[in-house]
Amino acid sequence: MAIISPTLLLDERKCKDNIALMCTKTRRMGLELRPHFKTHQSRIIGSWFRDTGINKITVSSLQMAAYFADDGWEDITVAFPVNHREINLINDLAARINLGILCVDPLNLEFLNKKLHNPANFWIEIDIDSQRSGLSPENLITIQSMIKMADPGLLRFRGFLSHAGKTYSASTVDEVVAIHRREVKELNNLASNFRRFSTHLEISVGDTPGCVMADEFPGITEIRPGNFVFFDLMQAEKGICRYNQIAIALACPVVAVYPPRGELVVYGGAIHLSKDFLINEHNVFFYGKPVNLTESGWSEPYPESAVVRLAQEHGVIQLKPEFLKKYRIGDIIGILPVHTCLTAQAMGSYQTLTGEKIDHM
Amino acid sequence: MAIISPTLLLDERKCKDNIALMCTKTRRMGLELRPHFKTHQSRIIGSWFRDTGINKITVSSLQMAAYFADDGWEDITVAFPVNHREINLINDLAARINLGILCVDPLNLEFLNKKLHNPANFWIEIDIDSQRSGLSPENLITIQSMIKMADPGLLRFRGFLSHAGKTYSASTVDEVVAIHRREVKELNNLASNFRRFSTHLEISVGDTPGCVMADEFPGITEIRPGNFVFFDLMQAEKGICRYNQIAIALACPVVAVYPPRGELVVYGGAIHLSKDFLINEHNVFFYGKPVNLTESGWSEPYPESAVVRLAQEHGVIQLKPEFLKKYRIGDIIGILPVHTCLTAQAMGSYQTLTGEKIDHM
Repeated sequence: MAIISPTLLLDERKCKDNIALMCTKTRRMGLELRPHFKTHQSRIIGSWFRDTGINKITVSSLQMAAYFADDGWEDITVAFPVNHREINLINDLAARINLGILCVDPLNLEFLNKKLHNPANFWIEIDIDSQRSGLSPENLITIQSMIKMADPGLLRFRGFLSHAGKTYSASTVDEVVAIHRREVKELNNLASNFRRFSTHLEISVGDTPGCVMADEFPGITEIRPGNFVFFDLMQAEKGICRYNQIAIALACPVVAVYPPRGELVVYGGAIHLSKDFLINEHNVFFYGKPVNLTESGWSEPYPESAVVRLAQEHGVIQLKPEFLKKYRIGDIIGILPVHTCLTAQAMGSYQTLTGEKIDHM
Repeated sequence: MAIISPTLLLDERKCKDNIALMCTKTRRMGLELRPHFKTHQSRIIGSWFRDTGINKITVSSLQMAAYFADDGWEDITVAFPVNHREINLINDLAARINLGILCVDPLNLEFLNKKLHNPANFWIEIDIDSQRSGLSPENLITIQSMIKMADPGLLRFRGFLSHAGKTYSASTVDEVVAIHRREVKELNNLASNFRRFSTHLEISVGDTPGCVMADEFPGITEIRPGNFVFFDLMQAEKGICRYNQIAIALACPVVAVYPPRGELVVYGGAIHLSKDFLINEHNVFFYGKPVNLTESGWSEPYPESAVVRLAQEHGVIQLKPEFLKKYRIGDIIGILPVHTCLTAQAMGSYQTLTGEKIDHM
């Protein structure tokens, strides 16, 4: 494989194993899996999901919905509060596919009742401590008014949707599971007040940490994890996955080696990895972990090593002397990303270990 | 101006004023200005530099060099350590333009002597405390051997180049100027040892904070600032520029408003702004500052306000109640970016205040 500049490698086998694991779990638990495609944003990877029987997906923008609708996906939820300014795109998509949209405010319904021309499904987003978007589950009066406001010929109420974003800042698996349990409980309590409005009231939850680690989903009808397709250091460092499940790595040419500093410099910086970071046990920020690239993929991260600084195109990697000495200018080293969603977005395409190009929107 | 999704607005007048200010300063001081185009990566903005008489530029990758060479730029320095794996692209460019490359190790010369087919200029990168790439100025023996190694028919030694990256983490203007002085002094000391190798030995320095704030550049022949073309919060917060000199702002649709939290949520997240951050006086991370968009551009940042959290597509903005109450779902709010180089890269194009599209590589 001739790598001349930063290249995002995709280990197809690991990725398909990650997909299979989640599909098996949801099937076993009787849950619908509506995977979030914002992590990979790829039609080819989407087809791997389709091959396992998945026929409904989640995306984070209407543009992304259009990208996948053009590829034949017919049931797509846009898990982002409805943006009134994109009503034309919403109408286009609602005419073509089974479109799901998110409402977070009565104003959304007031607007959609007037401006939506084609039927769509709507979900009410509930915020369980994520402090992002959605209504508090205690806000029963507003929630009820939203359900009642919706023009039934246009807007079909599906149920409640939440994203337990707090699991991403949890530091242990136990904490993740506790957050998940609280989310499930609160959503069920909420739903019990509204069963009279719908015989098929659904509850959708969506974070990868919770969906991977939890074993109980009482009352939940569908899950929408996304990151699990690749996983990343953010997941591995808290025990949600193993390092060897991380399915993408950034391959970077080595451009300088500094044994006295215990560092090497690669072509691969903030515009390739993104500046998302983790903080290690010594309170040091890091942006990735280096791995040895091999013919068949890559190794576990080198011990006590990290990408410690990033400029626009430079990455500075700290390595122990016994590993640093293996690298010379012109070699290639791999980096496991902190946050694969952002690295994939920054890179805009993938290359499999056999050299095939994989699309990214 | 019909904004329907996150849009990077460019205030052409501010941008041209920033360009004029730097051009005037360098002319007054008798310095060559070789502006770094990695910040804007735009042929149209490049033409604004050309209009002021600039004919030599800096870029951070060979792809970027090719983008501007195709637009008629004939003197381009790639201010990144030479990547041996891109030798074909180096040879292509060296055949077409007056190409400058950076050497950081004798291995670069050994390699180029063999593989370079067309003449190029080379600079030796010196690292004055930046801990990124380059040789220590104390490493006289290696530096001398590199100068002597270069095949004189192929590689023309131009001089020493450094990037005082530490000015970006300085917290005051005084600190910036002190770092700049030390850099200039060390480079002059170094150069004095090598005047015998070249009658026109050049010294090139390049960070925006130092180039904006310093008033003395003894012995320096050229400067390579880039960020000043737009500036950003990183510069404004330490007094390198005024808020009203920041030439780009991300226009974002408001999708949710939460008065009890003192926050609103916009369509505009990590994939639009980048995750680069600053830390405020209360030790809180922030990713941008909100401004009021007007017909003629935008206001100063709202007081005591900030983009406090980012997800892939969501931005959460903290605003005081008197400003928060002005916004409703469907409105547009502006965000001044922490780091404009990364925001511009993430967005991939600009829109002027009169609605024209401006290219980004």
